[in-house]
Amino acid sequence: MSSSTSTGSRGETVPTVPSAAGVADVTALLDRGRTMATPVLRAAVDRLAPPMDTVAAYHFGWIDAEGRPSDGDGGKAVRPALALLSAEAAGAAPEVGIPGAVAVELVHNFSLLHDDLMDGDEQRRHRDTVWKVHGPAQAILVGDALFALANEILLEIGTVEAGRATRRLTTATRKLIDGQAQDISYEHRERVTVEECLEMEGNKTGALLACAVSIGAVLGGADERTADTLERYGYHLGLAFQAVDDLLGIWGDPEATGKQTWSDLRQRKKSLPVVAALAAEGAAAERLGELLAADAKSNDFENFSEEEFAARAALIEEAGGRQWTAEEARRQHTIAIEALDGVDMPARVRDQLVALADFVVVRKR
Amino acid sequence: MSSSTSTGSRGETVPTVPSAAGVADVTALLDRGRTMATPVLRAAVDRLAPPMDTVAAYHFGWIDAEGRPSDGDGGKAVRPALALLSAEAAGAAPEVGIPGAVAVELVHNFSLLHDDLMDGDEQRRHRDTVWKVHGPAQAILVGDALFALANEILLEIGTVEAGRATRRLTTATRKLIDGQAQDISYEHRERVTVEECLEMEGNKTGALLACAVSIGAVLGGADERTADTLERYGYHLGLAFQAVDDLLGIWGDPEATGKQTWSDLRQRKKSLPVVAALAAEGAAAERLGELLAADAKSNDFENFSEEEFAARAALIEEAGGRQWTAEEARRQHTIAIEALDGVDMPARVRDQLVALADFVVVRKR
Repeated sequence: MSSSTSTGSRGETVPTVPSAAGVADVTALLDRGRTMATPVLRAAVDRLAPPMDTVAAYHFGWIDAEGRPSDGDGGKAVRPALALLSAEAAGAAPEVGIPGAVAVELVHNFSLLHDDLMDGDEQRRHRDTVWKVHGPAQAILVGDALFALANEILLEIGTVEAGRATRRLTTATRKLIDGQAQDISYEHRERVTVEECLEMEGNKTGALLACAVSIGAVLGGADERTADTLERYGYHLGLAFQAVDDLLGIWGDPEATGKQTWSDLRQRKKSLPVVAALAAEGAAAERLGELLAADAKSNDFENFSEEEFAARAALIEEAGGRQWTAEEARRQHTIAIEALDGVDMPARVRDQLVALADFVVVRKR
Repeated sequence: MSSSTSTGSRGETVPTVPSAAGVADVTALLDRGRTMATPVLRAAVDRLAPPMDTVAAYHFGWIDAEGRPSDGDGGKAVRPALALLSAEAAGAAPEVGIPGAVAVELVHNFSLLHDDLMDGDEQRRHRDTVWKVHGPAQAILVGDALFALANEILLEIGTVEAGRATRRLTTATRKLIDGQAQDISYEHRERVTVEECLEMEGNKTGALLACAVSIGAVLGGADERTADTLERYGYHLGLAFQAVDDLLGIWGDPEATGKQTWSDLRQRKKSLPVVAALAAEGAAAERLGELLAADAKSNDFENFSEEEFAARAALIEEAGGRQWTAEEARRQHTIAIEALDGVDMPARVRDQLVALADFVVVRKR
């Protein structure tokens, strides 16, 4: 792991934090989550009536647009890894967390299907989005089906714990929807405060990560206080995750992220570096404000050159938006790890949750 | 109540059945459901973050497109009435069924919001649909929010019964989604069998009515067998309801239904009278098949005259599609009422469930 601080170069994100476990451990943890959850997830998706099963399989990257088996990029799988550790944090076997891992993945992907359509995003994980390939109606319908399936997977367990787990998932889903509503409304506004941006990111990213870290424990019989404390870790981990995402969205290496250069700037996203820069004082912040206001009215924005986006990124950095966001990631990382002190859990599980938090802030994709 | 049989005239639907209670009783039952459920429904919708609360209030007819208070048509409110009777069928107070009534209404309206967008329907209950007024993104988002809210309302009760009720609602919602998927896929097909049409209508209409009739009982502590038997009544009531809807969709009186003349024909719906007529033998069925096949390719369909639709309706009737559907409504009505024998419930509740079933098949809107 590098211990560099944020410089002007591509691909460097957040100053790293001393870690209890190495990158190899995290890779193994993510692999375990993927390996244990994916067969159950696939069996769940197979329950959908045609053609929804096929559309969902395409979304998850299991088949291509022509229906041929494919080995697509299913994402980083941070949530399943967390759900299994969550069960272990409550002293249960990791398997106990599997339905929770699957339900959280189903809700996450329901929101991706609907958000991509609402936002008009044509690409996800290097592939055309579902509404682009199968049409808007299928994106709506299959999103709905995945959401319903998430509840079904949990409730068919039939225990009181499963009811509590479903309630937490429902709360997280409501926040996810609130966050998307905020995101949409902010697009039409000239100014968004840092606090508004953090609230929106807490809803869009924090709430479901929080649920992933409590759901396995709840299924394993943890009390409400333990679950709440684990959610505190997950919520702040989510905010750290999103701060890093916002950095990668501007300064990430396209080869690593799979996104275009200056991706978030091209989409006029009011992400943390942008709102933090606009909230700063000084000439750079002022010039940035003028430029972005003009961009919002420009008919030529689509044809902007690399240099024009680079100039905006440089102003954001000059106004302090990049540094503030990197520090914010570190702040949230610290709060997340401190929350772990509130739960009595096996030392190995704690070390692995710390390692996952470290991974989240140093990742390059 | 009239006891006419189906003739060629507008507004007459299904031969009526001897009834245990009069129309006045049904009006009172529907009013009770509306009066008891609506305040709780409004309080639930008020939980939504802006602007979703406003969009939902518009959808429910509580405000107009400019945000002014309005006294819109909230629908017939059959489901809330059933959910309260459901609690009483299990020996509980009607109030016990209120969260169930609200949850079912939320799911029903989630599906209306999404279906109207998927189907491109611009009008519902004499008003512009949500996607038409507030845009597709709000229709998706607020639909999602209502679905999540339905689960929240039930799960926050926190009992084992609430978990069981939520599971039944989830199963019904999955069927609702399956039905919409079938409906969409049938639109692109030249022929749909009567069995396929009935399966689709069972999913789209039967499943949620079934849930409305079991959910109050489950919240009131009924066992699974009682709940299943009540669902059998509700499912077949739903099929009777939909058969009548399909008759009204072609031969209904526009003043009563609030829909255009020949509404389902204009939308090329493969409803029961159409598929039953096409499945018949003889010259009328053959001529109808040729006409509809030509219509599917016609560029001039939008400009068809009243006479052209009337000719199609006459062929459907001549081929027996109208009579078959009216008989199907009566068959399903009979099965529904017979199912009530399987549950030991107060005689008054049984009479009221019979009265509601009678109402469903004789209604003119």
